[in-house]
Amino acid sequence: MNASQLIKLKSPLILASKSPRRKQLLHSMGFDFEVVPSNINEDKIFNEKASNYVMTLAKAKAAEVASEHPNSIIIGADTTVVFDNSYLNKPKDPNEARQMLNRLSGNTHSVFSGLCIFDTSQMLIQCDYSRTDVTFRKLDDEEINYYVDSGSPMDKAGSYGIQDDMGSIFVESIVGDFYNVVGLPIVKLYKLLRGLSD
Amino acid sequence: MNASQLIKLKSPLILASKSPRRKQLLHSMGFDFEVVPSNINEDKIFNEKASNYVMTLAKAKAAEVASEHPNSIIIGADTTVVFDNSYLNKPKDPNEARQMLNRLSGNTHSVFSGLCIFDTSQMLIQCDYSRTDVTFRKLDDEEINYYVDSGSPMDKAGSYGIQDDMGSIFVESIVGDFYNVVGLPIVKLYKLLRGLSD
Repeated sequence: MNASQLIKLKSPLILASKSPRRKQLLHSMGFDFEVVPSNINEDKIFNEKASNYVMTLAKAKAAEVASEHPNSIIIGADTTVVFDNSYLNKPKDPNEARQMLNRLSGNTHSVFSGLCIFDTSQMLIQCDYSRTDVTFRKLDDEEINYYVDSGSPMDKAGSYGIQDDMGSIFVESIVGDFYNVVGLPIVKLYKLLRGLSD
Repeated sequence: MNASQLIKLKSPLILASKSPRRKQLLHSMGFDFEVVPSNINEDKIFNEKASNYVMTLAKAKAAEVASEHPNSIIIGADTTVVFDNSYLNKPKDPNEARQMLNRLSGNTHSVFSGLCIFDTSQMLIQCDYSRTDVTFRKLDDEEINYYVDSGSPMDKAGSYGIQDDMGSIFVESIVGDFYNVVGLPIVKLYKLLRGLSD
């Protein structure tokens, strides 16, 4: 039993992302798909609203892969962590991860995911975004150091994963879609794909 | 790397619940524990606030197992779905599951989990609860029937699991702790256990 059974797509599905978490979520929905990562630079800062920023990046990722894949349905996604009017990307080194976690500790930040579905058989592109506010409990140095030493924060925007065993005990509460924080707003994805379904 | 490394308990840990989801969450935190289910009737309706109701049940579950297990730390938990001033327990049959999902569709309900930690070496019991509000998108009959036919709703309070592949695309947003909706508020659990740590 899986969500993909309610969706009949006319073209093969491509995920334009090498994120293992996006891959896992799409897989758990039951879809067959190919992974074709884009080469868009994710760290570029746009002077625009976060919701537009993540949709612009998601669109760029889908469009880059689309140019080489006719008759496909391509999923582009981008997830960005916003705190105190700045973007928290993947940390450059353990020290930056420690700094980010100290900033997030005891505070509320926002996670924006942009999502674009490019159906190249009809040259139709549809985008949406999702915002989730995430409140961390107050962390102590032992917890932050232990997490950073594990290496887990290093490939994650904002230096944490809400789904991993330490990240999950850092987050006191959220407002919005949980899976958006993992990296793929699957309710929005499901709605867009169901709209393309026969 | 796991959360349990930050907690040194003096006594063995026991989970007083046979819920596979609680077992999985506690396992993912890295704890070694034994499962000793209680025989408390979960469907009994108390005339009290939901937050008290779930703590009363969690305490009863922990206390029942405690009586047979000295020098242990026993986790009791209860999760209840509240909508429109009534408790939604596990559905009795597929028809009731369909009715519950139709009621939840397009609406917001609340999930309460009670949590009690009984340290029988010091006869110390500590309880807390967690509340998460969950908003479903509007579901159609095809989605509800497909989910009910899968059998998945039958062992779940409220007839859905936020972590399974259909439940996850029913939930548009939440306010509160995600893992509370899965069945175990792991942040609260971590805090209580860390308080018992050496």
